[in-house]
Amino acid sequence: MAGVSEATVSRVFNRVGPIKEETRLKVLKAAEALGYYPNAIAQSFARRKSGNLGVVLPYVPKVHIFSTYYFSEILSGIGEQVRELGYDMLLIFRKPGDDNGYIELFRSQKIDACILLGTTDTPEERKALRALKEANHPFCLVNQHFAGEDFLEVDADHEQGAYEAVKHLLDEGYRRIAFLNGPPGYSNSADRLKGYVRAMTEAGIFNPVDDPDEAIPAQWLETGNYSRTSGYESAFRFARHLDSIDAVFAANDRMGIGLIQGFRELGVLPGRDIAIVGYDDSDGARITDPPLTSVAVPFYRMGALAAKLLLKENADEAVSEFQEGVNHISGHLYQMATRLVVRSSSAGSQA
Amino acid sequence: MAGVSEATVSRVFNRVGPIKEETRLKVLKAAEALGYYPNAIAQSFARRKSGNLGVVLPYVPKVHIFSTYYFSEILSGIGEQVRELGYDMLLIFRKPGDDNGYIELFRSQKIDACILLGTTDTPEERKALRALKEANHPFCLVNQHFAGEDFLEVDADHEQGAYEAVKHLLDEGYRRIAFLNGPPGYSNSADRLKGYVRAMTEAGIFNPVDDPDEAIPAQWLETGNYSRTSGYESAFRFARHLDSIDAVFAANDRMGIGLIQGFRELGVLPGRDIAIVGYDDSDGARITDPPLTSVAVPFYRMGALAAKLLLKENADEAVSEFQEGVNHISGHLYQMATRLVVRSSSAGSQA
Repeated sequence: MAGVSEATVSRVFNRVGPIKEETRLKVLKAAEALGYYPNAIAQSFARRKSGNLGVVLPYVPKVHIFSTYYFSEILSGIGEQVRELGYDMLLIFRKPGDDNGYIELFRSQKIDACILLGTTDTPEERKALRALKEANHPFCLVNQHFAGEDFLEVDADHEQGAYEAVKHLLDEGYRRIAFLNGPPGYSNSADRLKGYVRAMTEAGIFNPVDDPDEAIPAQWLETGNYSRTSGYESAFRFARHLDSIDAVFAANDRMGIGLIQGFRELGVLPGRDIAIVGYDDSDGARITDPPLTSVAVPFYRMGALAAKLLLKENADEAVSEFQEGVNHISGHLYQMATRLVVRSSSAGSQA
Repeated sequence: MAGVSEATVSRVFNRVGPIKEETRLKVLKAAEALGYYPNAIAQSFARRKSGNLGVVLPYVPKVHIFSTYYFSEILSGIGEQVRELGYDMLLIFRKPGDDNGYIELFRSQKIDACILLGTTDTPEERKALRALKEANHPFCLVNQHFAGEDFLEVDADHEQGAYEAVKHLLDEGYRRIAFLNGPPGYSNSADRLKGYVRAMTEAGIFNPVDDPDEAIPAQWLETGNYSRTSGYESAFRFARHLDSIDAVFAANDRMGIGLIQGFRELGVLPGRDIAIVGYDDSDGARITDPPLTSVAVPFYRMGALAAKLLLKENADEAVSEFQEGVNHISGHLYQMATRLVVRSSSAGSQA
């Protein structure tokens, strides 16, 4: 209508580049006649970056999410990078199962990129994440792997971590090793199950089977929800089979600490009457009695790497700054190594 | 220039209310001639709320801030309210001593209101906060009191909390009670000092003096930085005076746990050879050996109240939803009660 190119219109509204006053007025009049203003301006604003990195967290009423070692360490690592790279960090709480408005967060310019924590593998979640990817919105998952997708993911090698934890117990002479896992919707629960079964199968205790679940005697497998309370309660269930259990591998420290407390109450002394190994190497592992053998996961560095991958242009550069312990598995999957930390809760063979 | 009122200009740019097409064009032409557009539009955007509650956190490299009980609990409480009231939470990291751009956060529409955590009482901080108040930007301080100002503050009664901790040790028969405080820039360090001196003075151990510092024998007072390591190191300094010390009150649990570890290494058994009392009642207090007597501070509720006071129109309503434990001290200062939790680290008199 103004007889000018789209680029000229853009230059007028963004006040970019040289423009004849006459052309300028022509564009503005046409825009006014077409009611074009507010959108054009909105778009020009839209192009401004928010300067915010979004972090989506699961919201569960009464759960003090920042007080869990897992989330707090990842957030600290993200925070470090956000600060270094001049961003702020927008925390968004989503109730698990909520209609997740991930795309809306980008559309409304609240965030430039997004890290998703505590996601679980459900059809709805996969659908939402695929939509985000198709719309080219940059996001990264931490500590959760969606097999068969090509999402940007920073994970840890939990299968190997669990394998080494159980191998350690075997090396100490324990053979009757039970496993307290977390909920199956998390890929890292499934990974730990695989590592546990692999070690037990290699040791000749389990028969090689296709489905890891089938390899395990029923009284040796419990499922908690990663809380201390669920570990505490499991101690009482395991205690019914103490004649056939001499060690328990817990999928995180909170549950491991709960096990220690439960067993103590029953008069079963951890580190003497039963071996316990946890997972995460949280602060708590150092101060329990006995101190808890655990598997260190570099959550802080995982959070930092995720932020770096999203906020830096060049992924190779982002990874190279981490120097060691990062494996580029395939596509957009980065995996970090874990490390066994032996303490007295698993010392001393009973064999 | 267009011969219309300011309100009309505003209506044109905000597309609010009825407006004659002729007037509209007149305003737009005048605006164009004056180069007025972008600002006007920017202002109209400015009026849109961001939907974000800002939380300013101190940034210290290598410190995993979310992993400290204190910050993580306050953030969890803020998070609960933010979620309930339909906001998101923007975390902003500031290096202590940084030129704090608090006002800029409001001007750039990144946040609607702001909670400041971990501030210290310095002339620069007071100046920045006064400027924020004068500009009518809503903000709230948590766990830090600026005497003589009228800032919105949610604090805990740390003087009473410290008093009760020391009173408990006195009741258990301890008299030679040393104190490991945190840095003096925090009002809550000063409060705890007052509570300690009040209890010791009431018991006739200290002479009544004006300056609490002067009342305390030098070997009974140490200053740490609220880290576990600083508690650990203090144990070795206190240990040189073990003939004149039979109990230590630590200003937080991290330092208390460090003390336990340090004393154990020296062969001095906490709970038997020396009594230890911590402060915060963190998760760690429950799992040390011996479990640590501590003072519970409702950090979670303090964070929640701060968010509520900022995001709800009506302060009385916000407070009334907390039912108990909130005292409206004066002006905009709200104070919550603490609670002593007795465990075996302080049990058994040696008197």
